Amino acid sequence: MKILVTNDDGIYSAGIAALVEALNDIAQVTVVAPQEEQSAVGHGITMKYPLRVFKYRKNGTFFGYAVEGTPADCVKMGMRNIMKESPDLVISGINHGSNTAINIIYSGTVSAAREAAIMDVPAIAISVTSHETTDFRYAGKVAKMLAQKVNEHGLPNGTLLNVNVPNLPENEIVGILVTKQSKAKWDDIYEKRIDPYGKDYYWLTGKMVEIENELHTDQVAIKNKFVSVTPIHFDLTDYETFKAMKSWDIEKKADEKA
Amino acid sequence: MKILVTNDDGIYSAGIAALVEALNDIAQVTVVAPQEEQSAVGHGITMKYPLRVFKYRKNGTFFGYAVEGTPADCVKMGMRNIMKESPDLVISGINHGSNTAINIIYSGTVSAAREAAIMDVPAIAISVTSHETTDFRYAGKVAKMLAQKVNEHGLPNGTLLNVNVPNLPENEIVGILVTKQSKAKWDDIYEKRIDPYGKDYYWLTGKMVEIENELHTDQVAIKNKFVSVTPIHFDLTDYETFKAMKSWDIEKKADEKA
Repeated sequence: MKILVTNDDGIYSAGIAALVEALNDIAQVTVVAPQEEQSAVGHGITMKYPLRVFKYRKNGTFFGYAVEGTPADCVKMGMRNIMKESPDLVISGINHGSNTAINIIYSGTVSAAREAAIMDVPAIAISVTSHETTDFRYAGKVAKMLAQKVNEHGLPNGTLLNVNVPNLPENEIVGILVTKQSKAKWDDIYEKRIDPYGKDYYWLTGKMVEIENELHTDQVAIKNKFVSVTPIHFDLTDYETFKAMKSWDIEKKADEKA
Repeated sequence: MKILVTNDDGIYSAGIAALVEALNDIAQVTVVAPQEEQSAVGHGITMKYPLRVFKYRKNGTFFGYAVEGTPADCVKMGMRNIMKESPDLVISGINHGSNTAINIIYSGTVSAAREAAIMDVPAIAISVTSHETTDFRYAGKVAKMLAQKVNEHGLPNGTLLNVNVPNLPENEIVGILVTKQSKAKWDDIYEKRIDPYGKDYYWLTGKMVEIENELHTDQVAIKNKFVSVTPIHFDLTDYETFKAMKSWDIEKKADEKA
């Protein structure tokens, strides 16, 4: 199996090192990852500027290719220019911090896996739920197991797996659940403050609020110490409303206008 | 009807002025829009920095509130701090340039409308298909018609309308279609170049390729001179794969591990 590995925390991060180590005995791994941490940069594709690619050696051994770009750039560059043939699987992570609910729209980790899915290659995004994680070994085992499962069962074109692993020792993990994206949302408010010159400014504060109790949703699963595995895609069409809007009587044809 | 209007091209743009003009006779309009063009900045929410709000006067008359932030920030600020009560509808646009297919994931215009949908307020994102558009009057009429339709029929919580209007005179528009997000994708390649110092760099080039012919998809509809109206939501769960993965045998419970 040929696996392309990337992330959004950058090629120097502990999470990507653990992922590569876990996959090395089941696959030929190629690492193409951002040269710098990209979590705050978002998940765009670089079109206005050129990209450069550097070989990164770790403790004297070649580790992978560092790209001056976003996670999605890395996947595109890896598949188009660096790998000789298309990979069987792309895995993005292991991310430091969870990617659940509406946050998966913003996630650089997920965007890299999405880029692969758009290019019709199966993909997995994997995150550990805390920014303070130092032990990625269990998440690495989960990545390895799921890589084998995806290899065995396949995924539909355009679909990827979004995986969140609780930041707990393996013996405290209750199990693994296939989940849906939860509807948890940010409850937030702008705090009004006065600057030293007497002018107003506003600072956003808030927390994520769960509005459902279903165990088979990403947010509830990780809270209950389960690994959450969510199949996601990027067809945002609301098919029910698509059908319901037939009664809105807004579809006009040229001959009706005449 | 109370309508909050925003955009991603900035409060000074011609598109937002045309939108406000079209809506003024059916609604009480409040404008809260980015102080600067935000298309390239992406669609995040500003948490690491404070926001400031300025009153913007146009030709001596108060036009709206300018926020030093993203389109999503504007919606949040408008709903939480500026408007006395929740609006009946949020409209984002009129954007200079189309937002179709996978591009709706990246769009600042759509992200503003999405922010409203997350906050359970019906929303519309509206774009004209060319960056060179100067006449937004027909798109303004479409926005007004759809605002009235949404007011009449409602939208499910979490659903918004993504509207694309061909850049054509009104008499060349064939009609209006309710559509699905198209599967059109970018076919791209990195062009390798050598810099003046003999080092390699790579530049992304590519074009959008349509891979379907269905008229009721956003990309095909606008190409055929129809206004495209796509109901979208942000539940990315792939429900079919969710069901299919039951046979993967990865769901393990604590007692099975024991």
